[in-house]
Formats: sequence, C-alpha cells, structure tokens
Amino acid sequence: MTPPYPIVTIAGVGLLGASLGLALKDRGLADHVRGVGRRQSSLDVAIDLGAIDSATTNLAEGCAEADVIVLCTPAAQIPDQLDTVRDAMKSTAIATDAASTKSIICNHARNTWPAPSRFVGAHPMAGSEKYGPDAARDDLYDGAFCILCPDGADVDAANAIQEFWSSVGCTIVAMDAAEHDRITARTSHVPHVAAAALAKIAGQLENAGPMIGNGFRDTTRIAAGRPELWRDICLTNPEAIIEGLETLEQECAAIRDAIQRNDADALTEFFEAGQRARQDLAGS
Amino acid sequence: MTPPYPIVTIAGVGLLGASLGLALKDRGLADHVRGVGRRQSSLDVAIDLGAIDSATTNLAEGCAEADVIVLCTPAAQIPDQLDTVRDAMKSTAIATDAASTKSIICNHARNTWPAPSRFVGAHPMAGSEKYGPDAARDDLYDGAFCILCPDGADVDAANAIQEFWSSVGCTIVAMDAAEHDRITARTSHVPHVAAAALAKIAGQLENAGPMIGNGFRDTTRIAAGRPELWRDICLTNPEAIIEGLETLEQECAAIRDAIQRNDADALTEFFEAGQRARQDLAGS
Repeated sequence: MTPPYPIVTIAGVGLLGASLGLALKDRGLADHVRGVGRRQSSLDVAIDLGAIDSATTNLAEGCAEADVIVLCTPAAQIPDQLDTVRDAMKSTAIATDAASTKSIICNHARNTWPAPSRFVGAHPMAGSEKYGPDAARDDLYDGAFCILCPDGADVDAANAIQEFWSSVGCTIVAMDAAEHDRITARTSHVPHVAAAALAKIAGQLENAGPMIGNGFRDTTRIAAGRPELWRDICLTNPEAIIEGLETLEQECAAIRDAIQRNDADALTEFFEAGQRARQDLAGS
Repeated sequence: MTPPYPIVTIAGVGLLGASLGLALKDRGLADHVRGVGRRQSSLDVAIDLGAIDSATTNLAEGCAEADVIVLCTPAAQIPDQLDTVRDAMKSTAIATDAASTKSIICNHARNTWPAPSRFVGAHPMAGSEKYGPDAARDDLYDGAFCILCPDGADVDAANAIQEFWSSVGCTIVAMDAAEHDRITARTSHVPHVAAAALAKIAGQLENAGPMIGNGFRDTTRIAAGRPELWRDICLTNPEAIIEGLETLEQECAAIRDAIQRNDADALTEFFEAGQRARQDLAGS
C-alpha cells in the first residue's frame, strides 16, 4: 500500500516535530519525512532517531516538494515562517502547525494566504516538560486531543488536516482560535507561569532541600519546560494570559484576606472549590 | 525480640496515622497500636486494615497507657489535644505529631507542658493528595525526610522521638519550628493554595475538557487534597503563607507587565529562573 503522504516536511525537530516524524514512519504514513531546523545538531539527532529521512536548514527549500507541511516551532516564529511556506509550497500542498497558541497564527494565515487558505492551525495536546529530539516518542500523539482551528481555511484542506492529525492517533476537536486561546490560558499557560513563579520563589530559600516533597515536585514539574517555548506562548496569547494571571492574583489575595481574619469557613470553601474543580476537570 | 514500643497510641487514623500503624506492625516495632479517632467508621477501617489493634473515640483514655503518643490529626486540632495528652499520659511517655505546621504547635507545648517537655514536634514529609485510612501504605514513611523541632524538649525525649521516626524509615532533619514554617510556606503551603486557585479558575470555563493536559494535571494534583487539612495549615502558619502569597502575586504581576510591554528578554529570564530553581530543588 502506498503511504497516504508522499512527502511530509516538519519544521522544528524538537519533541513535537521528532515525535511526529517517528509516528509517521512507524505507522507507514509517509514515504519521506523532511526535517527543517536551524541547528544542524538537532537535525542530525532526528536523522539518527529515524524521525526524519533528510534535513535542511532552509525552510523554503524544505517545503518546495512537500505534500504536507507541519510547523513544530515555537509560536512566535510561526507567522514569519508562514510567509515563507506560502511562497514556497506547491499549490496542492496543505499546511498545519502544532503551537500552543492559535489566534495570532490563524489570523496571520487568514490575512496573508490566498483565501480560502490551505493552512489549518492545530494544537495537539501532547507536550510535556521534556524537550528536544532526544525526548521524542513514536506514541506521543496516540490518544491525545488535537484542537483544530479551521477558521477561514479551505474545506478540503481542513478535512485533510483533520485526517492527517487523526492518522497519528489524535482525537480531533474543532474550535474557534480565540476560544482556544481563552481556554488554554487558564488550563495551561497561567498554570505554567504559576509553576515557574512557585519554583523561583522557593529557590530563594536556603535549606529547602528536605522540605521538597511530591506536592512541590508535581506542582512545579512544568517549570522544567523550555523557556523559549513559554516566552513565545506569553507573547502570542497576551490578553488571555494577562486576564488569567489577574484572576489568579485576586484568588491569592482573597485567601490572604481569609487567613488574616482567621476565616475558617472561607478557607474550607476555597479548598473545596479547588478540589471539586480539579475532580471535574481532571478526575482523580 | 521484644518490640521497642509496648503501646503506641495514634490519634487520627487517616493516611498518615493508619500508614504509621501499618509501618509499626509491619516492622514489629509495637506490641499494641491503639487508634483514637472521632469517627467510628474510620477506626473500623483502620482495624480491618491491621493498622491499629484497638480503638477508642476518647483521647484521654487512648493515651493513658501509651509509651509513645503520635498526633496525626489536622494542625488546628493539635493544641487542644496536647492539653488532653499532657494530663492523661504516663510521666515516662513521649509524644510527637505529624502536622505540616510546627510553630504554633511547638510553642503551645513549650508554654503549657512541664519543662523540659516530653513533646517533640515532627513533620514527616510523606503526605500526598490522597487521604483517609483507605489510602494507607506500610511504606509511606520509608525514605521520607522527617523534620524534627526539638526546641524546648527534654533531650532524652528528643532522642527517643528521633529514634521513633527513624525506626519507620524516616531520615531526620532537626530544625527550628519557625524556620520550618517559613520554608514549608514556599515549598508546600503556597504551592497548595496556588494549585487550588488554578483548579478553581479553570473550573469557571466551559468546554475546557479537551484542553486539560498533563501539565494541568500535575500542577493541580495537590488541589485534590483534603480541604480541612489545608484550611488548618493556613490557619496555623498565617504569616509565612501570607508573605509567600504576596511574593507569588508580585511575580505574577511582573509577568503581566512583561507581557504587556512585549518584553521577550524579561520573559525568557523569568522562565529560565523558574527552570533553574526547579532543577536545583527537585532535579529532573
């Protein structure tokens, strides 16, 4: 059987990009996976892993013959890359991305690509605090939700991109890019800022070592993530993250007040609300 | 060989108390473990598990014959219970606790028990978000750090309590109660408030389900903990938690400002600081 995708080009061969290459190869979905990266060293690792078959540091060159182009680079780089891809790709090709913010990226494509656009923004919910091609896994996308934002996209391209992410194991949920960004601010971006802040302020202590328990480890795990990735997420989802941080600060201030006035009922109510929400959102 | 502790009384047979009973029985350290609780149902579960040999809902009665008394109840209950224990226990007995805050408890014992006191405050770092006797494990304390606060305690009693917690597998670190509370505010208590607040504000969203990833799960895991426990921790470590929350709010506000002015360098620096602190404190 011929693989459905003769040539897939993946720009960015970190955790997401290299895992995608492995999944495509492992499932026999692509004849040839072409990796594009800025650093030859990462490309070499990705080739050694079998995640990509060939490599280039030139995005336009890497896209020229591709049938599917996937941008797995940090969010802030994607608008510029979309310009390059648009000019370099075949008219029959389709393009998608894997970034954690969607409005700026999808709006950029809608405003600059021929309408209806053959770019369909995606956010596969498959990251972790690990990064780089060494952390890649061929099952990273298996069973993961993938949010698709087909606003302004060509219907056939949207269907094909849906099929593409499904083929590596994702469950697709379509959503408006602005709603995606509003929700992920609170489910992912603000928690990440909080985790980094918690790690930072605990790091100001001396002798904290023996008092680091599993609670601290869990709560701050994502602070180990790649700083550039999270910088870009903040820069490309500013309004919703600012709003979420303000809300978090208000909650913290309300708890300070409750502690100050020794208000046991308010504290119980707060922790019960947190427990209930955690249960509803993430189970036990 | 005769077990070193003829009678150990454990007040509170939740996760910490029932696990302690299991560890004592499993290691052959106690002839008889007596459980004290408010609810007969929890005591029945603890007896069925083999965590305790007998049970009573009367603390004074439960302590009368004990050689070692361990208060595994929420922090805010412990001062009152210390009064009861002091009046009921044998003069040769020793007492300790397992609460997550230490200043109020240790100060209460120092101010109300005959000096030098036979109460030695302890905080075994062995909790989790699970609670109740059903979650008990005989190896909960194995390899855990246990902070001992021997301020004002009888030297022999302090040595005996150190030996007691060591005997169930803990590594002992002695520390002033105020320093313990100052450090755990940032390594445990403030992270817990933040986790509950993050869960609560994400719970206000609709359609968040598909956007709940492992990052959210990890960061908010401890929000599943027992509300009464965390209410009591807030009530018994007010100053350090208020200070820590203020510092967290300042960090969040600084990030909002950096996002607002599109300051990529400040954001990178912040996430790098979080990553470095997480690495230093908790490894990879």
